[in-house]
Amino acid sequence: MSVLQTSTRPGYTSKYSIAFQGEIGAYSQSAIYAFFGRDNVNEVLPLPTLRQVFQNLVREGSRADYAVVPIENSLAGTIGETLDLLLLSNNVRIVGEVRIPISHALIAHENCSSISKIRRVISHPQAIAQCKEYLDAHDWEQIPVYDTAGAAKMIRDENLEDTAAIASELAAEIYGLQILARHIEDDHSNQTRFIVITSNASSPVLVNSEANDYRTSIIFSTEHKPGSLVDSLSTLSSRKINLTKIESRPMKSRPWEYYFYVDFEGHEKDENCRNALDELKERTIELKILGSYKRA
Amino acid sequence: MSVLQTSTRPGYTSKYSIAFQGEIGAYSQSAIYAFFGRDNVNEVLPLPTLRQVFQNLVREGSRADYAVVPIENSLAGTIGETLDLLLLSNNVRIVGEVRIPISHALIAHENCSSISKIRRVISHPQAIAQCKEYLDAHDWEQIPVYDTAGAAKMIRDENLEDTAAIASELAAEIYGLQILARHIEDDHSNQTRFIVITSNASSPVLVNSEANDYRTSIIFSTEHKPGSLVDSLSTLSSRKINLTKIESRPMKSRPWEYYFYVDFEGHEKDENCRNALDELKERTIELKILGSYKRA
Repeated sequence: MSVLQTSTRPGYTSKYSIAFQGEIGAYSQSAIYAFFGRDNVNEVLPLPTLRQVFQNLVREGSRADYAVVPIENSLAGTIGETLDLLLLSNNVRIVGEVRIPISHALIAHENCSSISKIRRVISHPQAIAQCKEYLDAHDWEQIPVYDTAGAAKMIRDENLEDTAAIASELAAEIYGLQILARHIEDDHSNQTRFIVITSNASSPVLVNSEANDYRTSIIFSTEHKPGSLVDSLSTLSSRKINLTKIESRPMKSRPWEYYFYVDFEGHEKDENCRNALDELKERTIELKILGSYKRA
Repeated sequence: MSVLQTSTRPGYTSKYSIAFQGEIGAYSQSAIYAFFGRDNVNEVLPLPTLRQVFQNLVREGSRADYAVVPIENSLAGTIGETLDLLLLSNNVRIVGEVRIPISHALIAHENCSSISKIRRVISHPQAIAQCKEYLDAHDWEQIPVYDTAGAAKMIRDENLEDTAAIASELAAEIYGLQILARHIEDDHSNQTRFIVITSNASSPVLVNSEANDYRTSIIFSTEHKPGSLVDSLSTLSSRKINLTKIESRPMKSRPWEYYFYVDFEGHEKDENCRNALDELKERTIELKILGSYKRA
């Protein structure tokens, strides 16, 4: 059963095992719950790197039905490694997307009796930077660590009672910590877009919906000469197909040669999109259709 | 005096103060030395975040003549924050670029008598991941920390004699540590491209050289409608100007609306490029020319 057929929460009938990158309590885990609904998740499979997430998903006999990986953050931009892994991995298709707000909480050990007892704050440097205004109002030592959820885990594992972590509210819940303050980030518009991927070969079905509720993701490479990118993109623009994202990415094997990642509105099975993709295939060296899925 | 006029090493006559993001010994500092020549650097100014680097550069009375910041890594991709800061910062121009290999060394305390004494290895998680094959051959505990040069600094500051750091050879030199192994990364093609920026208003001069030795970087936004991007880019392709990079970036103020960052071959003062830029200005909502500079 495809995700698209079951994308309204009440319709889920199966429980899924879903892989993600990071520690238990990471924002990716929040994204999993936001997309599938917490009750529909049988287990989450945390893995240290994005590469391992993709490898796990395509492995014969993998426990993971899906993986949820970040593709773009509204502040920091595209996660290049995700694009590369989409290019390099065979049989991986995008079947959905979900956006979640990246809202940081200040969390502490349950034995910490008051915020006035806090002496140090630990988190990923990016999270510390995102909470600058809040932190500037407090005289705490700031200690960078490798991961937000990892910071929460350290407080529990090492029983740090004078230390707070900046992490998700989910991390506080999972590690049995208390929330001292919510939404402490300077910019509340910070969001991350995640994609839901699978190596299940069955295509998602075009359900009864306006075509422009769908987004299609492709990767292609062109000859390295003036105009070849515009020539490729004109197959879409001449059909009034709207691009929603474009990115050039260096080829790993040939540094500073590029491939292109493009998102556009529409479903690959729509006649207009199908014609555009057929023509694009003729104008590119390589074209990989990653999938069509409901826009978040 | 502009960098372009003095870009051959023997020609430097001044000593510069140059800001960068990271700890002393970071790869950005290696990039500074690679571009300016070590003897021409009066001082390096390490700052914790890219934002602070840009702020420092544009501040009245700043000590920094230039800053060197990463814009793209051949494996990990574009550094989105750098693009955003180029968009948001007034009076910042790109005047040069430099590429350096990201080659990791295994470095240890000078009192560490042998590699067989090593029990733990510390570094940024990305550097640990990049040296997977080498590390798999050793039975060391792997501990992620926030920064590669920071890991080297920890070994010195805390006198860790059973711990090695993965960092640059420059970091070993600066912190008085010994190099146990060089080039331990799995993929030796890993490079980072840095840009040299300044807030000095004087334009770099077009020196006696073929125009296609130059690269020009621009940022623009278009109307959100099908074809507007292709329409914009055709001002370049119709003049046989070759794009070397394109990227869509979400607008911070309007999540999931985009601006475009584009690099192309040629100098903004070339007649062909100037005509293209004039026409592009008419077809875009906003156009910012970041600078023309010698290709690395």
